[in-house]
Amino acid sequence: MTTLIDVPRGLAGVVVTETEIGDVRGDEGFYHYRQYSAIDLAEKCSFEDVWYLMFHGSLPTRAQREEFAARVAPLRRISAELRELLPHLAKAKPLDGLRTALSFTAAQYGMRPLLDTDEDERAAEVLFACAQAPTILTALHRLSQGQQPIEPRDDLPYASNYLYMLTGSEPTKQYAEAIEKYMISTVDHGFNNSTFTSRTIASTGADPGACLVGAIGAMSGPLHGGAPSRALAALEEIGTPDRIDDWVRGRIEAGERIMGFGHAVYTTDDPRSLMLRDVATELGGDLAEFAKQVERRVVEILAELKPGRNLYTNVEFYAGVVMEQCGVPRDMFTPTFTAARMVGWSANILEQARDSKIIRPRARYVGAQPPQPVVFPEG
Amino acid sequence: MTTLIDVPRGLAGVVVTETEIGDVRGDEGFYHYRQYSAIDLAEKCSFEDVWYLMFHGSLPTRAQREEFAARVAPLRRISAELRELLPHLAKAKPLDGLRTALSFTAAQYGMRPLLDTDEDERAAEVLFACAQAPTILTALHRLSQGQQPIEPRDDLPYASNYLYMLTGSEPTKQYAEAIEKYMISTVDHGFNNSTFTSRTIASTGADPGACLVGAIGAMSGPLHGGAPSRALAALEEIGTPDRIDDWVRGRIEAGERIMGFGHAVYTTDDPRSLMLRDVATELGGDLAEFAKQVERRVVEILAELKPGRNLYTNVEFYAGVVMEQCGVPRDMFTPTFTAARMVGWSANILEQARDSKIIRPRARYVGAQPPQPVVFPEG
Repeated sequence: MTTLIDVPRGLAGVVVTETEIGDVRGDEGFYHYRQYSAIDLAEKCSFEDVWYLMFHGSLPTRAQREEFAARVAPLRRISAELRELLPHLAKAKPLDGLRTALSFTAAQYGMRPLLDTDEDERAAEVLFACAQAPTILTALHRLSQGQQPIEPRDDLPYASNYLYMLTGSEPTKQYAEAIEKYMISTVDHGFNNSTFTSRTIASTGADPGACLVGAIGAMSGPLHGGAPSRALAALEEIGTPDRIDDWVRGRIEAGERIMGFGHAVYTTDDPRSLMLRDVATELGGDLAEFAKQVERRVVEILAELKPGRNLYTNVEFYAGVVMEQCGVPRDMFTPTFTAARMVGWSANILEQARDSKIIRPRARYVGAQPPQPVVFPEG
Repeated sequence: MTTLIDVPRGLAGVVVTETEIGDVRGDEGFYHYRQYSAIDLAEKCSFEDVWYLMFHGSLPTRAQREEFAARVAPLRRISAELRELLPHLAKAKPLDGLRTALSFTAAQYGMRPLLDTDEDERAAEVLFACAQAPTILTALHRLSQGQQPIEPRDDLPYASNYLYMLTGSEPTKQYAEAIEKYMISTVDHGFNNSTFTSRTIASTGADPGACLVGAIGAMSGPLHGGAPSRALAALEEIGTPDRIDDWVRGRIEAGERIMGFGHAVYTTDDPRSLMLRDVATELGGDLAEFAKQVERRVVEILAELKPGRNLYTNVEFYAGVVMEQCGVPRDMFTPTFTAARMVGWSANILEQARDSKIIRPRARYVGAQPPQPVVFPEG
């Protein structure tokens, strides 16, 4: 009989696999994709460059970059059948709609079990899925607002095209760059729940669509996909600088969490938060200034009331601010995050497909001792 | 920094959670749901009884049984919108169609995050999902064959209604009982990959639809959902008793697996296989007799060529035979398994929802050391 191995709750710290995709160093406030600082990549690369890096393990040459962009752009267009389906999905939350639409388009594409495909076929399948997601999500949002979906434009890069399909007008360079930085910074982040979900499903040899649809479901969980819009709502609730102290102390005394502060892995500044604070500052305006005032004061009060806990702003706090500044509607905050994260999931699926071992842990049975005789109760 | 904990590959033996739902004792050839032998339940209960047991932890009284059946039957009916969608899904494999259709119907139902719901609301949501699946799957199959879907009948119990919707005619008592036994015996089976997937997603607080859709994806993986139809295809390939030895030895010499033999957990007879062999024998006919001849000879040859490996028939072998005998088409073998297993996943989702800890393991980074400067290669 297999010996049962006890580990910390939630598999905390338990090593499921080796990876060459990236990692988070919580104590150092550092995370990386492949051999590069993710923040460095966000500041120096296009989304497509990082996408290429995640899939291929190296940054593209100029020729590879052009080839990749030319290959991806037409994959953004969705099929006529999917277009007909989307209005029926637009009443649900955008992530739930994406879950259904991506499941549909993956089957329509004819994605095959990982067990039966080679590297090229798999890579083409996840490329397609990642390219379709922004078109699906922006169409779902527009339909939910009674607007017509906007066709993707092949001449625009990923992030610009995303904002274009969302709003219907070509974004300013500043907005496009801000959202591109945000989306690059959320492509991957260690071995989080949705990434692990995608790999668990991939370990059965299922097709990439099955893996991605499972990961989208995980991302829709409030404990995982987070709520950049909740952090923003908190800023609005506070309203003015003089109300910060009362609001924060009231929340903490009531035993509530302060949204946008604290992270499971970072015990120092979240590097994404630092970068997005700079992005928000450059974009300018009252919201960014107020957010920085709130951040300063909340961190001080948390240090006072919860000493030793090292609570700083996490990615949610300034992500919400930056998306608001760039005109991304609130119900699209987590979906925007998800569109970018699909690239990270996909890289993980491709890596998992090279491992032949199914992920199959155990549970310890603690119920009434079997076998009891099967007797129906009276009544 | 969190200490990394090394464990066996694929998390083999690693305890993720405590459970009161059931367990497998591989060395004893025994598995149970709650405190009852699963085989005992299959022989003495209706599918609805076991469903009730999985959700509520106890067998129903007569009044509870009637109330449960009356509550479930109308939930089998699918919405007009889903009915319109199904023809667009029928070109894909049935499990891929179920993945999309269930995602759709869960969103349409308005399933909410587990984090925001109470026990009653969650239980109603998974009840709905489990009741919809057979209607969806049988409709997808019939549409793929150019036939019209059959409406569910409220007066038929689960298994009879399943066969009725599949074939268009009310099954004989013998067929209905055979399929009911099979479906009860596959409701749950320890902490397998899809069950774990459903719980991993549930640990984010996502809605039950998200959890079930992920699990369906896992089940579609060839290493997990298995292939009762492959075992049956092998029987046909062998064809006659005199060819058994050559066929088996040829396969083993070529390093191939013999489908339907060997199990990751059972080191003795698979209790499901023993039960289904009896069911197949009772149903009678040449196929059952031939299958038993093949089984005897394959087990002997495996014992000779792979001594000490304890390879016996697993659930797939006779499952395929029984489904064939009852007129279930081959592309519906794994979907039939899946429809039943949804009840097991659902019980696991309800249990996981009572645990507030997110499942989030780690990966060990083994790639090139970061941070390297971001420099694009020439070319």
